[in-house]
Amino acid sequence: MAHAWHLVSRPTGKPDLANFELRQIALPSLEEGQIRVKNLWLSVDPYMRPRMDDNPRSYIPPFKLGEPLDGGALGEVLESNAPGFAPGDLVKHMMGWRDEAIVLSAQATLIQPIKDVPIEAYLGILGGPGLTAYFGLFDVAMAKSRDTVFVSGAAGAVGSAVVQLAKAKGLVVIASAGGTSKCVWVRELGADAVIDYKADGNILDKLRAAAPNGIDVYFDNVGGEHLDAALATANTHARFALCGMISQYNADGAFTSLRYLTQAVMSRITLQGFISSDYVNRKNEFEAYVGDLIAAGKISSRSTVFEGLGSAPDAFLGLFNGENQGKMLVRL
Amino acid sequence: MAHAWHLVSRPTGKPDLANFELRQIALPSLEEGQIRVKNLWLSVDPYMRPRMDDNPRSYIPPFKLGEPLDGGALGEVLESNAPGFAPGDLVKHMMGWRDEAIVLSAQATLIQPIKDVPIEAYLGILGGPGLTAYFGLFDVAMAKSRDTVFVSGAAGAVGSAVVQLAKAKGLVVIASAGGTSKCVWVRELGADAVIDYKADGNILDKLRAAAPNGIDVYFDNVGGEHLDAALATANTHARFALCGMISQYNADGAFTSLRYLTQAVMSRITLQGFISSDYVNRKNEFEAYVGDLIAAGKISSRSTVFEGLGSAPDAFLGLFNGENQGKMLVRL
Repeated sequence: MAHAWHLVSRPTGKPDLANFELRQIALPSLEEGQIRVKNLWLSVDPYMRPRMDDNPRSYIPPFKLGEPLDGGALGEVLESNAPGFAPGDLVKHMMGWRDEAIVLSAQATLIQPIKDVPIEAYLGILGGPGLTAYFGLFDVAMAKSRDTVFVSGAAGAVGSAVVQLAKAKGLVVIASAGGTSKCVWVRELGADAVIDYKADGNILDKLRAAAPNGIDVYFDNVGGEHLDAALATANTHARFALCGMISQYNADGAFTSLRYLTQAVMSRITLQGFISSDYVNRKNEFEAYVGDLIAAGKISSRSTVFEGLGSAPDAFLGLFNGENQGKMLVRL
Repeated sequence: MAHAWHLVSRPTGKPDLANFELRQIALPSLEEGQIRVKNLWLSVDPYMRPRMDDNPRSYIPPFKLGEPLDGGALGEVLESNAPGFAPGDLVKHMMGWRDEAIVLSAQATLIQPIKDVPIEAYLGILGGPGLTAYFGLFDVAMAKSRDTVFVSGAAGAVGSAVVQLAKAKGLVVIASAGGTSKCVWVRELGADAVIDYKADGNILDKLRAAAPNGIDVYFDNVGGEHLDAALATANTHARFALCGMISQYNADGAFTSLRYLTQAVMSRITLQGFISSDYVNRKNEFEAYVGDLIAAGKISSRSTVFEGLGSAPDAFLGLFNGENQGKMLVRL
């Protein structure tokens, strides 16, 4: 028998453990084109929170009540009924939140481990968060030489990748994170200045002090007051990549209050929402670029690990309590 | 002696007549490269309101206290000390809010009237508002065939130009205006559906009813609740041209509250602030395109006229009370 976490009620505001239930599931027998995978690593991500709402206008269908959740995962093939896949192969797929899964081979990607790089990097800097950081920074926000980049949620999976990719490109990086230990950690990643948004004082004053010449790019993982501070300090023709707004996801029916939105007109700012799946067709470009940086030791994979399938909801809830440095993962 | 309106105090919130004073001014004698112009038409525009604030971060220097205001104007050359300009010539320039002005010839544009087109069109559909509508719609928002366009402030100078340009291109146009008579007028301009934002009910419900398949482009002249409704109804990859936010200009220190900002991520919306002066180098392209449409009778110049220099502040204040249909002008 396999086991999978089910969504048993939709959260109102902040999710809690009662929204989830671990249940046994029966795995059907393997059909043509399928593989049976034993999961080794599960990914939990902020985007999963809005999927728990019943929002028909999202880019991705809502999770269904009473059914298993899904999400990124890495596993080992136990049994294969698909050409190109053999027992022992490492694969990445989207049947997470469970210990074992039947996966369509077309929806699984073979992983070729890179020497000295932990395989779980394929769920982080070499996976979705890295791809999101790469295209958000260089494609959506068009970050270029001499730009000053502000990134919020810089201790998160995407934010820490943005810091590293921007510094590897020689940009000036102002980062924001919550709490002293995270700020120290983000500084170690290479950020030129780090704002502790949990410390006394408001974010705008801190950002103005850290970026006296303004910012050219804002990579938004947070929304709310961070976004407002970025609007207030943006230089002419600044570009904002709107990647996520974790500060808003649990705010059921709450409003984002922006004092400086008119600055978007005055300073001719472009704010562009994006999601990583719009860029999957350029995955090879990303993997080659980031793979080279990793091999050269210029950037690295960082993660916070919870142990065991039972801890998956705790790991997920931990995202909203800021418990992770880098990618939040569950090791089975 | 000439006369000019001076800004004598900075408005807090909504401006009133006490912020302005009409004073005599002495015109210096004409120097090399200058022309003396008798103004015939003055333009008053929403963008002048934020210029009255002491905001050093705007794209345009704030008006100075105790000095004459300036703005778009059309006039007749009385005297010329500049090659290419002769008495009797019609010119467009930026020394408005006064009856007579010494103008640098380099900052004046000769106007060649088009048959059957009133000259004041050069302050409206053939001037700044038309240029703003044209580039905002087709360049910033990249409006294209089969798009559904939502435009707020559709009875204003820019909004009414957007409605006409979008319809001339065959797009579906949902427009918003305040009050029955304006809505009737905007419908006459060609809009497929018009929302009366002053009528009972909220803007979002009205927009959802008018655009059941969502919107692809939003041309924002208003901000606030209109912007939020546009976010809530935007289709994937929708483009928003942020042209102005008249609902916010008088809201001293007030916040824009957006409930649907996270939709910018979910639907991958691009919001781009712009100002018309970024496009002056492409003025010829605009004038040729719009001139042809006017000559073909496909679009027309529309304005609301106040009479006499003394009425300039009233005309300006009228912008914020919604007193204009089309371009707000003062005829001297």
